[in-house]
Amino acid sequence: MRMYDIIEKKRNGEELTDQEIRFFIEEYTKGDIPDYQVSALMMAVYFQDMTEKERAELTSAMVDSGDKIDLSAISGTKVDKHSTGGVGDTTTLVLAPLVASLGVPVAKMSGRGLGHTGGTIDKLESIPGFHVEISNDDFIHLVNKNKVAVIGQSGNLTPADKKLYSLRDVTATVNSIPLIASSIMSKKIASGADSIVLDVKTGSGAFMQELEDAKELAGAMVSIGNRVGRNTMAVISDMSQPLGKGIGNALEVKEAIDTLKGHGPEDLTELCLVLGSQMVVLAGKAETLDEARNQLQENMQNGKAFNQFKIFLDSQGGDAHVADHPEMLPQATYKIELPALETGTVSEIVANEVGTAAMMLGAGRATKDSVIDLAAGIVLHKKIGDKVTEGETLLTIHTNQNVIEEVKDKLYKSIRISDTTVNPPTLIYDTVTE
Amino acid sequence: MRMYDIIEKKRNGEELTDQEIRFFIEEYTKGDIPDYQVSALMMAVYFQDMTEKERAELTSAMVDSGDKIDLSAISGTKVDKHSTGGVGDTTTLVLAPLVASLGVPVAKMSGRGLGHTGGTIDKLESIPGFHVEISNDDFIHLVNKNKVAVIGQSGNLTPADKKLYSLRDVTATVNSIPLIASSIMSKKIASGADSIVLDVKTGSGAFMQELEDAKELAGAMVSIGNRVGRNTMAVISDMSQPLGKGIGNALEVKEAIDTLKGHGPEDLTELCLVLGSQMVVLAGKAETLDEARNQLQENMQNGKAFNQFKIFLDSQGGDAHVADHPEMLPQATYKIELPALETGTVSEIVANEVGTAAMMLGAGRATKDSVIDLAAGIVLHKKIGDKVTEGETLLTIHTNQNVIEEVKDKLYKSIRISDTTVNPPTLIYDTVTE
Repeated sequence: MRMYDIIEKKRNGEELTDQEIRFFIEEYTKGDIPDYQVSALMMAVYFQDMTEKERAELTSAMVDSGDKIDLSAISGTKVDKHSTGGVGDTTTLVLAPLVASLGVPVAKMSGRGLGHTGGTIDKLESIPGFHVEISNDDFIHLVNKNKVAVIGQSGNLTPADKKLYSLRDVTATVNSIPLIASSIMSKKIASGADSIVLDVKTGSGAFMQELEDAKELAGAMVSIGNRVGRNTMAVISDMSQPLGKGIGNALEVKEAIDTLKGHGPEDLTELCLVLGSQMVVLAGKAETLDEARNQLQENMQNGKAFNQFKIFLDSQGGDAHVADHPEMLPQATYKIELPALETGTVSEIVANEVGTAAMMLGAGRATKDSVIDLAAGIVLHKKIGDKVTEGETLLTIHTNQNVIEEVKDKLYKSIRISDTTVNPPTLIYDTVTE
Repeated sequence: MRMYDIIEKKRNGEELTDQEIRFFIEEYTKGDIPDYQVSALMMAVYFQDMTEKERAELTSAMVDSGDKIDLSAISGTKVDKHSTGGVGDTTTLVLAPLVASLGVPVAKMSGRGLGHTGGTIDKLESIPGFHVEISNDDFIHLVNKNKVAVIGQSGNLTPADKKLYSLRDVTATVNSIPLIASSIMSKKIASGADSIVLDVKTGSGAFMQELEDAKELAGAMVSIGNRVGRNTMAVISDMSQPLGKGIGNALEVKEAIDTLKGHGPEDLTELCLVLGSQMVVLAGKAETLDEARNQLQENMQNGKAFNQFKIFLDSQGGDAHVADHPEMLPQATYKIELPALETGTVSEIVANEVGTAAMMLGAGRATKDSVIDLAAGIVLHKKIGDKVTEGETLLTIHTNQNVIEEVKDKLYKSIRISDTTVNPPTLIYDTVTE
């Protein structure tokens, strides 16, 4: 088998065999196929696409290229949730204890990553003492005991994907549905979940800004998941404006606590109930989505979800008192209110611009070595569709910097106020199950 | 300027600027852009093509990447001829002395190369004593004195093309019109000719097997040549069967001699007259193609073309007596006749198969290190459209090997005899001037 023939075949629009895909991934991982042949293949895939069969095989081959997490020692159906990423997305912090409170085991492997705010681990580290450096045995023990635990990414998961992604990143071949879908799914599958709920975002703050592209990506990932034997479904949700109101690490922890107690922002609460219901049904803890939703809402009201969160914090060294006293979370020196410059209805809050503003405040990492300011961020007081009067506060900037004119300027430019009636955007566009 | 943006721009189907193309070629030649980015760009070009403006700039940038031959010390308009390659193509050996006999300066830089038979230099080295290792000064002096000289490729011509071609060769991006055209034209332009006549072959023995592809390549090359200020035109000629009758190095020298004396094979003679007329007109030595053709035919008949060939051989150390006594050329030990197995009309002689048979006999190089057998090859007795009787000789195999069953078998498989009337193929399909 020769890599040249594989490139040529894909270039000509033909379907690669399982053997060809495995050959390419295995030899590339070993370093026996040069980058220049792989980047040519990636560009050919960009133009010629891959069939569902090819995508599933590519994913499996990447899973097999490295370590696989074995969660079989955890009883019950392990359901994982993955979001394609957006601004102010606090769903993992809410969903992990929420569905665990119904007995669904949540074994979450998480990372830090680059972006507008930190990853789930950064956010959790706002809780004094909380840590994710636990052994695999402790991790499994904790999930069996408490139904929920979070561990930092360790081991050599999907090295083929890491190598491929680095190459795609510098050869303009990131933006290809089969390659994005197989990359995400390979990591999820190697992480060991039995079932997967995907939250695919669309809108200005999402990777897939257009709804049609988000649908295509969702369909691609669901197909891969089910083909490789993991029950997989996707929800397509809005990311035209930030989700919830808080954007920032400690600010999002505070918002997650509010949501677990049943008084979080409307959109964040609704999305958590939609995603959580799917997780509960996939885990076999409810027959229908309605039944699952009722149970989740009940546990938000009766304090069980909140209590589960405290158990979770405590079990990983965190100070659970913080959940009762969110003022113990890192606080910014300055809290600066941004007043509306006109009267009307908020018609636009460009999510990625607000996210970038949060990153400029120190809430996220621009490079791997950036140090995150856990207290920094933005709290929106108004969202799309809300009426606002000139001088009324649009949002509060939480910052430890004293010169933030550039951030203010960016925020003003990203928020539009209209003199006509504006409806809030649709939150859930679609669900994809096959 | 970043290579990433250039790849992305081309991937999206946009036209690259002159600056972007120069940046990519210059930095790649220096080694400051990695192969993996360039192969991704080449694949994007494969799918998105290049405009005429981009192709011309790419060619110019490749020309400027290395040495350029300065032929300004040669008086008159220097016209070069380039063929895209085929089987039994002896036109250069005929055309160089033929047009020189009309006072057109022919300063030919030539190579050895891989293929069914050797390059022009290999063929000329069938003449005892002939050599092409001459200095640039001697080369220019010889052209001024005798109107014709051949020099081996030297210097660092178009290093960008060499690097790009090596990369394309292993990434399935050779077969792209803008890349083929710019590669060929960059070498021709760096070689210093004022005007260029291209012979683009089509048919089974050609790189461009389909006529439409050959026309597209011809158009692309003519456009590039004229855009960079070289008068360029192309003839599209048949390569469905071998050109002429001899396939092999010494065999083709013998055929060139016959043709220069006016009694060469009909198709080779005609193609030389067509290409030669274009060269003579481009050099300003005739007003019309008809006038040029008459002059060329006259010099074939009156011995001037043949005499020019002898002067040429002599001036580069070759034994000119060979021209009068072709039996002095290297002779094969065995001359084996292949009889027709049936009676009818020859309907097919698959050029590339016959070429491969010649290479198997040792007439060409399979790898850079192969040693050529100058005497080996094939002489066709019949061509498409010729009637043949069972037992009559189809061709003679010239070989120094004593077991050639495989070659015989291949030749029988590549020649078809029909019981209906068959016309010879069209020799000249088209001429492209703009």
